[in-house]
Amino acid sequence: MFKKFKIPDATIGRLSMYSRFLSDADEKGKTTVSSHDIAQATGVTPAQVRKDLAYFGEFGTRGVGYNSRELYNYIMKILGLDKRWSIAIVGAGNLGRALSQYKGFQQRGFDIVCIFDNDPQKIGKKIANIDIYSLDLLEEKVKELNIVLGIIAVPAPAAQDVADKLVNAGIRGIINFAPVNITVKQNIFVRRVDLAAQLEYLTYYLEESR
Amino acid sequence: MFKKFKIPDATIGRLSMYSRFLSDADEKGKTTVSSHDIAQATGVTPAQVRKDLAYFGEFGTRGVGYNSRELYNYIMKILGLDKRWSIAIVGAGNLGRALSQYKGFQQRGFDIVCIFDNDPQKIGKKIANIDIYSLDLLEEKVKELNIVLGIIAVPAPAAQDVADKLVNAGIRGIINFAPVNITVKQNIFVRRVDLAAQLEYLTYYLEESR
Repeated sequence: MFKKFKIPDATIGRLSMYSRFLSDADEKGKTTVSSHDIAQATGVTPAQVRKDLAYFGEFGTRGVGYNSRELYNYIMKILGLDKRWSIAIVGAGNLGRALSQYKGFQQRGFDIVCIFDNDPQKIGKKIANIDIYSLDLLEEKVKELNIVLGIIAVPAPAAQDVADKLVNAGIRGIINFAPVNITVKQNIFVRRVDLAAQLEYLTYYLEESR
Repeated sequence: MFKKFKIPDATIGRLSMYSRFLSDADEKGKTTVSSHDIAQATGVTPAQVRKDLAYFGEFGTRGVGYNSRELYNYIMKILGLDKRWSIAIVGAGNLGRALSQYKGFQQRGFDIVCIFDNDPQKIGKKIANIDIYSLDLLEEKVKELNIVLGIIAVPAPAAQDVADKLVNAGIRGIINFAPVNITVKQNIFVRRVDLAAQLEYLTYYLEESR
């Protein structure tokens, strides 16, 4: 689905890391940084930093480096983070609850504006001052609150149905935390985050390296 | 750090998905599945399924398919999931709290056996019946409870210090949820899970596709 884009997925992930380092450097009064500085702070090679940035144009001055704030602003614009994004979470269980309260989203420009669930015990309540609505109100709220992104935090068997509802409501991008594959129509972007699978990489490598 | 392994990282992630499908198929009484079945359920091509499995040997019977339970058991063994793993979470904030209660870990053989924090208000309490200990007890508990894996769920500035403590205590693999790069000595495995960065992939693609 992402094949039409020329930029490797991994580059996008690294830009996110670079921008955090640049923001930090700028805050600490470090106005100029080198590709070595960025590389060291983010755990990649300086050549990789230069290659990643070269996809988007020419930056920095040879022998001097990059202006921290300028490069930060530029990367944030590339990532679409020069503005704020409204997000809906579906599922007010443990995971949905934690994500609703996760401060890391807000810092990067993501506002969780409402939560949806089908449990009458939860509907009408709030998590971290965010309203929990019935799933029946999804379409209405997506339009009213200009919500573009959705997070699926429901059990696996419910994930596809929730994805369909999000897409029908007008959502353009989805993070799916349910450990199951969901299918959506072509111009909708989906990323699956499988928390248990992250541990399975570790156990695979540990077994393999014995 | 993972360069010595011949199997692509993405293959490991897909094996995890395949195993979930196979477990499901077996439970539903579907004793034999084809690479097409696996592919359709997990959103990849049948050729990819066959290629991923071929790294580990010959499976299935041409024209018949794979025995669901046999292939499931074999994949679980590859992933090191033919036994259970004890895990410590460091950080009893919102994210650590949610991860402690996340049912998806247990289902795959991961037991969160204790939680560590440095907040005296939290130490001595429990989350989902799991004890919260002072970080000072890390080494003792890791040995006592045979903990091999650690999850870092602390704010970014504290992450490296916690990683050092985990490694010193004898932890072999780490999932780092803090949005910062951590460095560890060579034979320790680390995976970084950056929740906000997942949303940034979506916003990048959305901006790029306009």
